[in-house]
Amino acid sequence: MADETVEIELPDEDSYALAAKKVQSILIAVEEGNSAGLKELLEPLHPADIADLLEQIDERQRNDLIAVAGDGIAGEVLSELEESLREDVIGQLTPEALASAVQELRSDDVVDLVEDLEEEQQEAVLDALEPLDRHAVEQALTWPEESAGRLMQVETVRAPEHWTVGETIDYLRGEEDLPDQFYHVILVDPRMKPVGYVTLGRLLGSRREVPLKDITEDSFRIIPALQDEGEVAYAFNQYHLISAPVVDEEGRLVGTITIDDAMAVLDEEHEEDILRLAGVGEGSLSDRVFNTTKQRLPWLAVNLATSILASLVIALFEDALQQIVALAVLMPIVASMGGNAGTQSLTVAVRAIATKDLTGSNVWRVIRKEMIVGLINGVFFAVTMGVIGVIWFGTPILGVVIALAMVINLVVAGLAGTVIPVVLEKLGIDPALASGAFVTTVTDVVGFFAFLGLAVVLML
Amino acid sequence: MADETVEIELPDEDSYALAAKKVQSILIAVEEGNSAGLKELLEPLHPADIADLLEQIDERQRNDLIAVAGDGIAGEVLSELEESLREDVIGQLTPEALASAVQELRSDDVVDLVEDLEEEQQEAVLDALEPLDRHAVEQALTWPEESAGRLMQVETVRAPEHWTVGETIDYLRGEEDLPDQFYHVILVDPRMKPVGYVTLGRLLGSRREVPLKDITEDSFRIIPALQDEGEVAYAFNQYHLISAPVVDEEGRLVGTITIDDAMAVLDEEHEEDILRLAGVGEGSLSDRVFNTTKQRLPWLAVNLATSILASLVIALFEDALQQIVALAVLMPIVASMGGNAGTQSLTVAVRAIATKDLTGSNVWRVIRKEMIVGLINGVFFAVTMGVIGVIWFGTPILGVVIALAMVINLVVAGLAGTVIPVVLEKLGIDPALASGAFVTTVTDVVGFFAFLGLAVVLML
Repeated sequence: MADETVEIELPDEDSYALAAKKVQSILIAVEEGNSAGLKELLEPLHPADIADLLEQIDERQRNDLIAVAGDGIAGEVLSELEESLREDVIGQLTPEALASAVQELRSDDVVDLVEDLEEEQQEAVLDALEPLDRHAVEQALTWPEESAGRLMQVETVRAPEHWTVGETIDYLRGEEDLPDQFYHVILVDPRMKPVGYVTLGRLLGSRREVPLKDITEDSFRIIPALQDEGEVAYAFNQYHLISAPVVDEEGRLVGTITIDDAMAVLDEEHEEDILRLAGVGEGSLSDRVFNTTKQRLPWLAVNLATSILASLVIALFEDALQQIVALAVLMPIVASMGGNAGTQSLTVAVRAIATKDLTGSNVWRVIRKEMIVGLINGVFFAVTMGVIGVIWFGTPILGVVIALAMVINLVVAGLAGTVIPVVLEKLGIDPALASGAFVTTVTDVVGFFAFLGLAVVLML
Repeated sequence: MADETVEIELPDEDSYALAAKKVQSILIAVEEGNSAGLKELLEPLHPADIADLLEQIDERQRNDLIAVAGDGIAGEVLSELEESLREDVIGQLTPEALASAVQELRSDDVVDLVEDLEEEQQEAVLDALEPLDRHAVEQALTWPEESAGRLMQVETVRAPEHWTVGETIDYLRGEEDLPDQFYHVILVDPRMKPVGYVTLGRLLGSRREVPLKDITEDSFRIIPALQDEGEVAYAFNQYHLISAPVVDEEGRLVGTITIDDAMAVLDEEHEEDILRLAGVGEGSLSDRVFNTTKQRLPWLAVNLATSILASLVIALFEDALQQIVALAVLMPIVASMGGNAGTQSLTVAVRAIATKDLTGSNVWRVIRKEMIVGLINGVFFAVTMGVIGVIWFGTPILGVVIALAMVINLVVAGLAGTVIPVVLEKLGIDPALASGAFVTTVTDVVGFFAFLGLAVVLML
């Protein structure tokens, strides 16, 4: 099982992942200490791919690579790296390499880079910046974490609202310091409040004398700097925004958010939802064993508590189990079916809450629907499992018991799977985080209780 | 539980969701048949919000709203609607309303709109288009489903590679029919092969005599029209693209994909992964009861089969269960802990495969790590549960049995949770779709077998 000898190759249908051969050549160059060869291999790679490479190799290889590559690790690589690795990698860089790396970054990327660093490293990065850039970054860090203020770049391209196309183009052509990427010119009033924007395409396609006011876009939306970044991502996705002006509490323009940043946030939020639904708080592949263990343990502890609760229900029926051992054989089936149906309902509900499709106007209808779906599937599997039970154990009444328990548990699963996330959301608890434990507790307890209870009533 | 009387209001922290009050006013206008009032209420809403509204209200309300609003339902609303509702809504529109709705759409949005319609409705939409637009749409439909060719817009803004900034600006200003949204001018060679692109910002900021060739962007990437849309979304997210040229098999420019389309695909793929991991094939809140039942039934059937398998394992130990009823009480705990730990590992693995972080170069390391994490958590919960078992039942050997079974099952969970998704991916099966069933089968079977088997060996 050594890394070097056995190789599972994932299908290579995709053109974007780093080819295994390329990784091999890079690691060989690292081992040979061939600095020039390594730089040549890294040069054509996108910083995001280099970051992925650093995440995939092990710690020793990573440190060697950084030592051999020296200042070949650009700032963009750092900003693409997973948080859990950034501190390590930054710690490996010489002060000169770090300085040259961060100077090339956009202000929002520097903010993203330093916000989670320890103070000492944060200072080192800030010291490497030009005074003006440093000021912009420190300014951005005064906004709360995960706010639009942290996400925005402070560079804006703006024009007074009374300008014409010609005036704007002349201004842009004379301006030395335009941002690398911008898609709109923001119109501001004399008090710096954004009043509209014009796409560059429209600007280029219009005659010089046209007033900017006449060619602004309907899609214009203003983002408050204090808004949660998840809401920002929602707005970009929902309204197909490309860029949007960000304003402070007085409504004055303080920055711009572009769609690539919003897309990254959307991606993170999805990731978080998926991991939380599975009971993995946060965490990534490159976390150390200790961190991974620590992240997963609390969720397993919650699960232990809920499964002990279910066992206490079973313990109520020890006599029945001793008399009819078939009950012990069949009872996990009822609980498992309920758990699965509940997870189905809750996942749909959690997603619908996240995308704002589940609201006050349809929540009762959705609950009713989930219960009907549970009922229909319940009846289907009740009949199936009832027949199997009779054939297996030759006791018709056992078939009736498991069938009834199945129907009850699947209806309850539909109800609990919808109500629990809605209630958690109302209480201000992330439904992705906590619903799973509650729902399976309900379906386990109800499943065991219904099955064993019915058995006592009908069979003993 | 009638929709009209009880109202659960989800927290209203968010500025983007449609306010409940607004929904109420709209439904009142619909009930009153107040067409002018309804249009006034809908007018300021973004098409995406109107689509969400149509998804949230029930069928009767929806049909009434469409009847009252008439041609107030714009084409963009149709293209924002969930697929499951599009046919319904299009069926409700008069041919005139449908024609005016689709004529305003971009070619890629029309493609997205018609590709899943039944033939009759597809014809009706195509008939409503101008001949040139219709040709473009029919052309796009010749590309395979979920390919870049389906995703792209055929409108491109291009310039010969030898042009200067001035020539390009003059051309753009003279051009009548520029796309609404474009962010780059694509440089093409005489055979229409894209060779680079220039951002509009750079174009505006450069002097007229500068050749386009001198100001092209490094980020330039060409998308083959046959590429899977998931790969396209990955490339946009990974490389921070804003737009990219699409080429046919001969490498000739045939269209452009913009980041908003890529973002929508990314969103869909995530949605699909989350739902598949939960055993909900596809499906949304607004699906009818019958469809929802049908989607969930196969997954529950798979779960029934796997839980019967687990029951067969339990049945092997009927004698032991009859002698020691405590085994029946405790056995679900071991299975449940294994199932949870396995789900944690598999979710991390499925995500890592999707984001291409789990590759041939680190798969063994990840498997080893997951098993060690399983071992550490296993030992922790073995001790906890062993002590609980002894206290509860007063039989020390029972504590040893559950402790050993717990360690075994959590290590197996780490192994199965990683190996199964990797193997499924290698076999060309979506790991998000099938891993869950396999992993919980393994942890159930191993959990019951280890616990009951150890009990037989050590206790009887």
